[in-house]
Amino acid sequence: MVKKRAVILLSGGLDSTTCLAVAKSEGYECYAMSFNYGQRHKAELLAAERIASSFGVKEFKVIGIDMDGIGGSALTDESIAVPEEGVEEGIPVTYVPARNTVFLSLALGWAEVVDADDIFIGVNAVDYSGYPDCRPEFVKAFEVLANIATKKGVETGSLCIKTPLIDLSKADIIRAGVALGVDYAETVSCYQASDEGEACGKCDSCRLRKEGFEAAGQADPTRYCV
Amino acid sequence: MVKKRAVILLSGGLDSTTCLAVAKSEGYECYAMSFNYGQRHKAELLAAERIASSFGVKEFKVIGIDMDGIGGSALTDESIAVPEEGVEEGIPVTYVPARNTVFLSLALGWAEVVDADDIFIGVNAVDYSGYPDCRPEFVKAFEVLANIATKKGVETGSLCIKTPLIDLSKADIIRAGVALGVDYAETVSCYQASDEGEACGKCDSCRLRKEGFEAAGQADPTRYCV
Repeated sequence: MVKKRAVILLSGGLDSTTCLAVAKSEGYECYAMSFNYGQRHKAELLAAERIASSFGVKEFKVIGIDMDGIGGSALTDESIAVPEEGVEEGIPVTYVPARNTVFLSLALGWAEVVDADDIFIGVNAVDYSGYPDCRPEFVKAFEVLANIATKKGVETGSLCIKTPLIDLSKADIIRAGVALGVDYAETVSCYQASDEGEACGKCDSCRLRKEGFEAAGQADPTRYCV
Repeated sequence: MVKKRAVILLSGGLDSTTCLAVAKSEGYECYAMSFNYGQRHKAELLAAERIASSFGVKEFKVIGIDMDGIGGSALTDESIAVPEEGVEEGIPVTYVPARNTVFLSLALGWAEVVDADDIFIGVNAVDYSGYPDCRPEFVKAFEVLANIATKKGVETGSLCIKTPLIDLSKADIIRAGVALGVDYAETVSCYQASDEGEACGKCDSCRLRKEGFEAAGQADPTRYCV
C-alpha cells in the first residue's frame, strides 16, 4: 500500500514539532517545510532541521521569503520591540501580516508537487496569541481556497488542512507530545532566542510555553538565557 | 481627501501593466509588487521596474521567494521544457503550483502594512492559459480568506481583490490599455524572454499576445528574437 503523504509546517517550536509527531504517528510519509522569512533569529531553523532529521522525514525544505521587505511586525522589523510585560488583549505587535496565509500557500504548492493530500499546521485556538490566522475559520477558508486554487484540488478535491492541535490547550499539547516521545529540549519557541537557541523567558511565546509545562505537570526542559 | 490605496501585482507583462493603468485611472495611490521567484528570466522584473516608474507608483517592491525550491513547473524548473507547439487543452506544464495564491498572500501582507483596501491582479478568464488560479471562483475564495486571515480584514472586512480584466479578451485588454496610454513595447510576456526582453514568439504566452494584437487591430510592438 502506498503511504499517504503530508506536508508539515515545521517552525522548530513546540506546537509544530508536536504536529509532526502526530502526523508521523498517523502513518504519514512526512515532508517538513520551514521558512527563512527574515525572523529575528535563525535558532528555530536549526532546531527545525534537527527535529526533521530525528523524526526521519522524507524531505526537509527551508524556503526563503523576503517578508522583512514587507515589515509591519516585531518579528521581522528590528525597530519594533518584542513585548516582555505579559500577554495582553487583542492582536499583538508580533503578528506578522498574512504569515500563515503565505506559509500555507507555499505548503500547498509543495503538496501539489509531491502529491500530498494533507497539510499539517500546528495552530491552536485555546492558548493562542491572538492571531487571526490561527483560528478555525481561517483554516476552513484556506482549505476551500486550496481545492479551487490548484490543479490537484480541481482534479481531486482532496486537499485537506489538518490542525490536530486546534482544540488543545498548551498543557494538552505538551502531554500529547510527551506521549509520542517528543523531546521538547530540542524545540525553540522564543521570539528572540539567542543564536544558541536560549530563550528570553519574557516574551508571550515563552510565557505561554512556561505556563504549559507547569499546567501539564512536566519539567520544563527549555534553556533560558537568564 | 485621503487617496485610496491599492497594491497591484505587477509582473511586467501585458495584463498586469494594463491592470496598473486601470488602477491609476481610477485614482488609486498605487503600490506595485513584483516577485523574484526563480522564473527563467529576469527581463520581466526589469520591465516591471521601468513600468512602475513610468506610472509614478508610490512604491515598487520586488519580493524574493524560493519557489524554484518547490519546482513542478516549466517556468521554475529548467529541466521541464516550455511548450512551443501551440496552446493545448487542459492545465499546461507552465502552471506554477499555487503561484497566484502565494503572490496574493504576500500582496495581502503588504496591503495590511500600507493600509490598502484593494489588491489588483490582472487575471482574465477568457483568453487565459488554463490555470485554475486565474478563475473568478479562485479570486472570490481568496477575498473571503483575506478578510478572515488578517488583522485588517477582521477589523474592517473591507479587503477586496480587484480583477478589472477578468471578463476581457486579450484584444479587449489591449484596446483598454491603449486608451489609457499604455506603451506595450515596455511589457514582456514571453515565458522564455532573452535578458534583453526579446520574446520567443512560440510559447503560449507569446501566441496569446500576438493573437490579441491582431484581433485588436493594433500594431504589435513586441520585440521578437527571431
